[in-house]
Amino acid sequence: MALFEETVAKIKPQDKAVREAARAHLSQLVMPHWALGRVLDIGVDLAGITRSLKPSMTRKTIVVMAGDHGVVAEGVSKYPQEVTPQMVLGFVSGGAGINALARQAGARVVVVDMGVAGDLSALAKSGKIISRNMGAGTGNIARGPAMSREKAVASIEAGIAIAAELAATTDVFGTGDMGIGNTTPSAAIAALVTGKTPAEVTGRGTGIDDAQLARKAETVGRALAINRPNPADALDILSKVGGFEIAGLTGLILGAAAAGKPVIVDGYISTAAALMARLACPVCAEYMFAAHRSAENGHALMQASLGKEPLLDLGMRLGEGTGAALAMNIIEAASRVLSEVATFGEAAVSGPVE
Amino acid sequence: MALFEETVAKIKPQDKAVREAARAHLSQLVMPHWALGRVLDIGVDLAGITRSLKPSMTRKTIVVMAGDHGVVAEGVSKYPQEVTPQMVLGFVSGGAGINALARQAGARVVVVDMGVAGDLSALAKSGKIISRNMGAGTGNIARGPAMSREKAVASIEAGIAIAAELAATTDVFGTGDMGIGNTTPSAAIAALVTGKTPAEVTGRGTGIDDAQLARKAETVGRALAINRPNPADALDILSKVGGFEIAGLTGLILGAAAAGKPVIVDGYISTAAALMARLACPVCAEYMFAAHRSAENGHALMQASLGKEPLLDLGMRLGEGTGAALAMNIIEAASRVLSEVATFGEAAVSGPVE
Repeated sequence: MALFEETVAKIKPQDKAVREAARAHLSQLVMPHWALGRVLDIGVDLAGITRSLKPSMTRKTIVVMAGDHGVVAEGVSKYPQEVTPQMVLGFVSGGAGINALARQAGARVVVVDMGVAGDLSALAKSGKIISRNMGAGTGNIARGPAMSREKAVASIEAGIAIAAELAATTDVFGTGDMGIGNTTPSAAIAALVTGKTPAEVTGRGTGIDDAQLARKAETVGRALAINRPNPADALDILSKVGGFEIAGLTGLILGAAAAGKPVIVDGYISTAAALMARLACPVCAEYMFAAHRSAENGHALMQASLGKEPLLDLGMRLGEGTGAALAMNIIEAASRVLSEVATFGEAAVSGPVE
Repeated sequence: MALFEETVAKIKPQDKAVREAARAHLSQLVMPHWALGRVLDIGVDLAGITRSLKPSMTRKTIVVMAGDHGVVAEGVSKYPQEVTPQMVLGFVSGGAGINALARQAGARVVVVDMGVAGDLSALAKSGKIISRNMGAGTGNIARGPAMSREKAVASIEAGIAIAAELAATTDVFGTGDMGIGNTTPSAAIAALVTGKTPAEVTGRGTGIDDAQLARKAETVGRALAINRPNPADALDILSKVGGFEIAGLTGLILGAAAAGKPVIVDGYISTAAALMARLACPVCAEYMFAAHRSAENGHALMQASLGKEPLLDLGMRLGEGTGAALAMNIIEAASRVLSEVATFGEAAVSGPVE
């Protein structure tokens, strides 16, 4: 468990002095006071995160982690499990939603097989994806644990190592997920962290009907009742009701924070991972931005628990990192305002009438 | 008035058949049904606007129109009038907020002097701005009309001509404004169109205090009482309580629609112009997107009247086209989803379990 503990210990709070210097500078920009609102708030955060008054946010990396889920045996999803490896192929061929949105944002997409139930070794060999496959899908959480505690640690550490390697060529990370069934373990995590009932935080995922939704919420309740995860222990939660990609994203977020990089948390599944990262290391939340409010039921409650107001609210519920890609534009915009806009003094523009 | 009337007559509704073809295609994308929410709705609009199933939105043009306002004599602004030409210089030198955000979005910024009270002829001669100066600021609307009806027509037609010229090299337009005092005529337009009281739609602009805000709302009420604009006549409204840049933006929006181009309406002032464009030609609203919800009081009421839900809500209140620049990323993203994402069939991904 050395890498996990080392990483958690390495994460420092934002730099308060740099934050204050950024705030003072942004207050002098050639515009009415704080007239760009949250864009300026983000600028302060970026300065505090990067320890720089001129952070660049042009090198954008979205890490999409894929995994399968034994709980699909309970009929919680509208799509068959084979869609997970099929979509990984789609990411590699460039025809998925995330590919289009990443091209728009100028972001690279890194795809990781954390535990897909399907043979992706050809893609891994050719370097088109990273393979950290922890198994052919998790155990069925409605009947027992998702994985062993050791596998949870290994999954987190895989995410940490990937973040550490990519950090050298990345200014800002985005998280993404793919995994048929993965809103079910995420709902279990959401219920546990927010204290809400399964029904309050369980949504339609890929589009199930009312009867399936009721069964899914009941499945979430059963997973929590059977596994009894310790709500104070992220490793216990992830091993009992998590997923390989959820644990991997938990590690990615921790690794990004340890490397001093901002990380844009995508939607429902990514937010479950972010809640686990924060549970393992509360200060890592200072490195997170919430990309968007998902249309998935319960996401707003998770974001409220995380203490993050989303940047976008466009009724999206795809995952894959699509919300993170769109939000990267706003993060880059904030960094450019911090670095590139003149002050009243520099621009020789008159101040307020006294 | 030939160009104005010709342009209004030229604006066609969105193409319904292309919209339906886009909707059918987007319903087949390799994702759960409509899982990108409003991004897909925008894709349908872009298809209907451009008459194309593969519209490109990479050539982005933000037109920032500047003008001064005689009503500043009433003490409605926190900043002196000399800031208007100073900011135009700032736009040209690239150090203003809009420049940073336009660089992020990959948009060009075109600056137009519609009626600045200051000598900008050197910038016009060197081609750094377009000069369509209609006068050294408008008349004081608290005491009489802003301009003659002829000047209102000339201002609109200047905007139309600029849109027509830029359309050849533009996929998507954004509007922007600069003009000390211009929230006051915009509030008068807002009150007139929404039927709300001046106090309900008047905001702090560049940051005035409570006493000034009360005086500003009273000034708006006086402008309406003295000028008695005909609420059914956009030319009457613009000439009596408008502004040169507001009329210019009205024309820009009409010209963009006539050229079959989407136009992203920025904040408070641009929305006043959009309301005037819609009054002159209701169908032109089909070409508009609302960029963001401004922090300026009353903006939400104006957008509700326009029937447009904003794409962003980040507490911005700068103008200059800054909201439009950020929103251009979302419009481009929607066009890329429409053009670049594979269908289930193309990607050989399994559909829902029956």
